[in-house]
Amino acid sequence: MPLDVLILSTRAADYARLLAATPSPPLQLHLAASPAEAEPWLATAEVVLADPPLARPLLDRMTALRWLQSTYAGVELLTAPGLRRDYLLTNARGVFGEQMAEYVLGYVIMHERRGWQRFLAQREGRWDPSWPGRLRGKTLGLVGVGSIGAEIARVAHCFGLRVFGYTRASEDCQHVDCYFHGDALADMAAVCDYLVASLPNTPASRHLIDRAVLTALPAHALLINVGRGSTVDENALLDVLQAGRIAGAVLDVFQNEPLPPDHPLWRMPNVLITSHTAALSHPEDIAPIFVENLQRYVAGQELRHHVDFARGY
Amino acid sequence: MPLDVLILSTRAADYARLLAATPSPPLQLHLAASPAEAEPWLATAEVVLADPPLARPLLDRMTALRWLQSTYAGVELLTAPGLRRDYLLTNARGVFGEQMAEYVLGYVIMHERRGWQRFLAQREGRWDPSWPGRLRGKTLGLVGVGSIGAEIARVAHCFGLRVFGYTRASEDCQHVDCYFHGDALADMAAVCDYLVASLPNTPASRHLIDRAVLTALPAHALLINVGRGSTVDENALLDVLQAGRIAGAVLDVFQNEPLPPDHPLWRMPNVLITSHTAALSHPEDIAPIFVENLQRYVAGQELRHHVDFARGY
Repeated sequence: MPLDVLILSTRAADYARLLAATPSPPLQLHLAASPAEAEPWLATAEVVLADPPLARPLLDRMTALRWLQSTYAGVELLTAPGLRRDYLLTNARGVFGEQMAEYVLGYVIMHERRGWQRFLAQREGRWDPSWPGRLRGKTLGLVGVGSIGAEIARVAHCFGLRVFGYTRASEDCQHVDCYFHGDALADMAAVCDYLVASLPNTPASRHLIDRAVLTALPAHALLINVGRGSTVDENALLDVLQAGRIAGAVLDVFQNEPLPPDHPLWRMPNVLITSHTAALSHPEDIAPIFVENLQRYVAGQELRHHVDFARGY
Repeated sequence: MPLDVLILSTRAADYARLLAATPSPPLQLHLAASPAEAEPWLATAEVVLADPPLARPLLDRMTALRWLQSTYAGVELLTAPGLRRDYLLTNARGVFGEQMAEYVLGYVIMHERRGWQRFLAQREGRWDPSWPGRLRGKTLGLVGVGSIGAEIARVAHCFGLRVFGYTRASEDCQHVDCYFHGDALADMAAVCDYLVASLPNTPASRHLIDRAVLTALPAHALLINVGRGSTVDENALLDVLQAGRIAGAVLDVFQNEPLPPDHPLWRMPNVLITSHTAALSHPEDIAPIFVENLQRYVAGQELRHHVDFARGY
């Protein structure tokens, strides 16, 4: 009997096209681009491939659910306390590093080159020959060295940057030149030109980048957050930015998203806001993860990228 | 007797500091940050380290001149027809690739990520979750594969880009996946997402990127010129941009610099102007080239980076 599978994603049609083009177990596929469209399949779908924001409101009514594959890396919407945990949850991993590395290096380069000031000069018809900075000799510090941090480190090395890494304990990325652990995050921040956070939203990461870390950064430092907004104490960051104690911040993620229209971060001249677009779940990246897990599921094997509900990732 | 050396550069003091810190032959050093300051040394300086725009007006009156080391790569101001050619001219090479590669990759990434649109959205306090593009699967075509093109190719490969190269004949860069020569520039342009020119201003490069090449580019293509303005037919480029036949252009160099305030390029929404800052002559990069050539000069050896006046580089 074919497996009853619900695809619940704004990109459901793309997933259906990609699955049709890939050898996979026999499936009874249902497509839904919104929670409303998923209603007819809630009582029968044993397997769900879903964008977490679409799955969250339906979770309690997915009575046949045994396994949910998230299209996102971040699954905090599904691991929050009080939600059901009687199914297998897997997330997407290992496919966001490329986009993240492009983002981080692109914004670091534009910061050094004064790209935004030059863009504004052009709107005034003003030739701006001011000297740009460059990456050579600079240090990039990674807060979190998972698959995303490792890819950022690899590309940073291509540009000749020194790379430091803060992790809980692991030291297995060949492109990190020096590791920091435990209470040494502020020590690392103190010697970084760029501090890049790529952590998931978990109890352990909450406000890890606090006032002490932010004030330890050099005055010319740039903070980049491509992980989750909860990693950074936003009030402390606002204070540090308003006082000009660091050069600026490139923020993709926030405590509350979308960032409220009246939030002071919008109007700060040393802040760039990128509206949670640093790395998106392209169906052509996610479909192979789902297909591999489908084959494992049907064969009764352990799934890849299994999420620990308590740990949050 | 110490060698009589004039340093004629806006960064003369930096060069003096760097030379003082480096073992070099005995020198009688004179510093000038402008042509006026150089007046006292014109009749005695045998060796001149100079920014070409400062040396040009004094060239005929440097009566003791035997060797001039340019701080720039581009020496068209000194090789123009009618100017004296009775001295050795060397230029700076091999040190601009890093800055150029940062520039090219930075602007390509920002183009894909819609960085400029997002920057403008932020000024309106508008959350802009529109999907960015990415580099994976894209093709970058190099017009000119000298030391600058080779470094751009190396870093482009780090990001997984396919790299094509147009050269006169050489095929010696390991990071170029496919070469084009002769009348095949338009053929290469037709299969590029980004076309990057890094050629010097020479008779052979003039308007190499002409209307035929520009109209061969795909509609989504981005043109980047970090070489010299003369490489691109600016009138043809204006037509192609105004008609929206390509996505845009990132221009560091122009037929006339500074770009005149009333030039239509300033106001085109699909053009970025960076005021000839893509790669500057940092004294810490140029001084070692000069010192090595000084040692060769004193030893009567052939100088490195010798410029052929007729060829122009």
